Amino acid sequence: MKFNNRNVFISDKAVIGENVKIGDNTCIYDHVVIEDNCIIGNDCIIGEPGNNYYFKDTYVNPKTVIGKNSLIRSHCIIYAGSEFGEGFSTGHRVTIRENSVFGKFCRLGTLSDIQGYVTFGDYCWLHSNVHIGQQSTIGNFVFIYPYVVFTNDPHPPSNICVGPTIGDFSQVAVGTVVLPGVKIGKHCLIGAQSLVGKDVDDYQLVAGNPGKLIKDVRDLKSRETGLSHYPWPYNFERGMPWENIGFDKWKIANGYEND
Amino acid sequence: MKFNNRNVFISDKAVIGENVKIGDNTCIYDHVVIEDNCIIGNDCIIGEPGNNYYFKDTYVNPKTVIGKNSLIRSHCIIYAGSEFGEGFSTGHRVTIRENSVFGKFCRLGTLSDIQGYVTFGDYCWLHSNVHIGQQSTIGNFVFIYPYVVFTNDPHPPSNICVGPTIGDFSQVAVGTVVLPGVKIGKHCLIGAQSLVGKDVDDYQLVAGNPGKLIKDVRDLKSRETGLSHYPWPYNFERGMPWENIGFDKWKIANGYEND
Amino acid sequence: MKFNNRNVFISDKAVIGENVKIGDNTCIYDHVVIEDNCIIGNDCIIGEPGNNYYFKDTYVNPKTVIGKNSLIRSHCIIYAGSEFGEGFSTGHRVTIRENSVFGKFCRLGTLSDIQGYVTFGDYCWLHSNVHIGQQSTIGNFVFIYPYVVFTNDPHPPSNICVGPTIGDFSQVAVGTVVLPGVKIGKHCLIGAQSLVGKDVDDYQLVAGNPGKLIKDVRDLKSRETGLSHYPWPYNFERGMPWENIGFDKWKIANGYEND
Repeated sequence: MKFNNRNVFISDKAVIGENVKIGDNTCIYDHVVIEDNCIIGNDCIIGEPGNNYYFKDTYVNPKTVIGKNSLIRSHCIIYAGSEFGEGFSTGHRVTIRENSVFGKFCRLGTLSDIQGYVTFGDYCWLHSNVHIGQQSTIGNFVFIYPYVVFTNDPHPPSNICVGPTIGDFSQVAVGTVVLPGVKIGKHCLIGAQSLVGKDVDDYQLVAGNPGKLIKDVRDLKSRETGLSHYPWPYNFERGMPWENIGFDKWKIANGYEND
Repeated sequence: MKFNNRNVFISDKAVIGENVKIGDNTCIYDHVVIEDNCIIGNDCIIGEPGNNYYFKDTYVNPKTVIGKNSLIRSHCIIYAGSEFGEGFSTGHRVTIRENSVFGKFCRLGTLSDIQGYVTFGDYCWLHSNVHIGQQSTIGNFVFIYPYVVFTNDPHPPSNICVGPTIGDFSQVAVGTVVLPGVKIGKHCLIGAQSLVGKDVDDYQLVAGNPGKLIKDVRDLKSRETGLSHYPWPYNFERGMPWENIGFDKWKIANGYEND
Repeated sequence: MKFNNRNVFISDKAVIGENVKIGDNTCIYDHVVIEDNCIIGNDCIIGEPGNNYYFKDTYVNPKTVIGKNSLIRSHCIIYAGSEFGEGFSTGHRVTIRENSVFGKFCRLGTLSDIQGYVTFGDYCWLHSNVHIGQQSTIGNFVFIYPYVVFTNDPHPPSNICVGPTIGDFSQVAVGTVVLPGVKIGKHCLIGAQSLVGKDVDDYQLVAGNPGKLIKDVRDLKSRETGLSHYPWPYNFERGMPWENIGFDKWKIANGYEND
């Protein structure tokens, strides 16, 4: 049904692995490496050249690597000069600028906008329409929900660029803005539509505009069960590496004894 | 000017009605039914297959129906397995996932993102960049403004999925987040940039972060006229079925006597 | 690498200047004028016809002018009937409706959505995902950050349409909603995630939901330097016409003596 090889452009300087499927109307530019078993949807641009391409004759497209078993859905634009670990997957119309580094098994939702010069760990799941400013640093197992924005200019407009830092296992709920340079610890929960202007310690729930410390996430009870839901890895394992093993057993074998 | 039939792909398992126009670079996949007099813009994908298509050889694209007289603008992606009543119209770059059911004469603005497994009544108008999470249920004549988000996971991340429910004639203003499972009654007005975490009774105005009950919408005066604007159907009829008839007369003939 | 002239459509009623590059899969419709040295990316639609095109046989596409040295990145949709001064540049997936007038050297970020019937001065920089409603009026040197929304209907739904007005040199930070008809003066700073419902005098800092007057921007000290950052033109010149000249010297020569 799809993958008819209609109007596909692949640079002769790209490297395409085994069993890769590429959708109609997609362009793959110089020095893109697509590893085995990837699926690239329709109407994508992979290896989009940076600004210098338009203005410097000597421009050479930097290397881009899409890890094995990745699934990039239609209408995505990925700039040259980024790297994605295995099992990367996206929704539609994602934009990712240069110098973005993603670990393994990350997921980006439809319309997400990654501004480049960012680092993500493994198993980061971004929902639809997340905006990550330059110089953001995100740990492992971080979930970010729709319309969250990470900012980086404390006195706009200026030449300062300091993004937020988010620790492992933290969750940032829908519509929240994280201000420049804010450090959020591990296992935190930031409530919906918060404005986070101060650092957040490990295991804290912060919510509101301006964001305030509400309580320790471990004291937050599920409305459904009356039990603690956080730290969430004990209660959610779909798609996580501790699926069918349990977080307790997994964490000891994987260097997360203290989580 | 448009509709030159350039680089169009139509599955031989699709059914295209009379007088349908299809824009350049558009793909229409298996088991899509496009009824008479529809216009589909450029660069669209109609009947995008679900995730299983990539991984299961036995995948069959479910049926998709675009009702007669619909207008889908360019760069939209509509997954297989949804149904749209007559007179459906969209802006550009709309994404609609599977199992979305829309009544008659609904409109979706540019960049709207419908996550699937949702139900809309008739004459729902969504402005640009609205995000509707799974398991949301929306009545008739509901207007939703830009950057509104309907959420569904009360304790992220979890396996619980309970979307909001919105009654007939309600309005949700720009930038508002409606939290999981919240029930909003009929003829409500939710103010701009609110965070709605509690149920809202019929005819209530709720606003703020966190959202608070402000007053009955019938006590809200127009700044321009000094008169009540709500219930709005008495004061707005452009594109509505009571246009040129008046809401009073229409509602009696159409089962809305109590509105 | 790019600009292979693959699947490009250019109307014979369009006028293309010297040294213009047009990306693959792009359509340029009737009465579009693209001035010299412009770059148009892949998958764009320039001169998209308005609604009447679909329904009136007598429709004639109005004139669209893209000023010289402009750079429009991929997947943008620009409706017929707008005008862009020289040096216009956009990110990806920008949508611009009819009757939008932009001065010189304006920049629009990825996913921005300009609803038409708006006026921008020179050197306006909009970051990603900004939504500008109809009837908005924006001065010169105005910077607008991600997820800002300018609204225009005070009593939704109604037939009233009154957009905000923003003075020269003002800054609107991320996630802010500006309500219908609000007038923001010059050299203002609107903080992140604010809801601005009242007029703002020149040089004021307003923040919060609801937005409140915080202080004069000239009393705001940089956390880095301890010095005043505002009025910002004294401290930021990258890409501005006073680059390498200084704002003091430039403003006298250019009619901004009072700024």
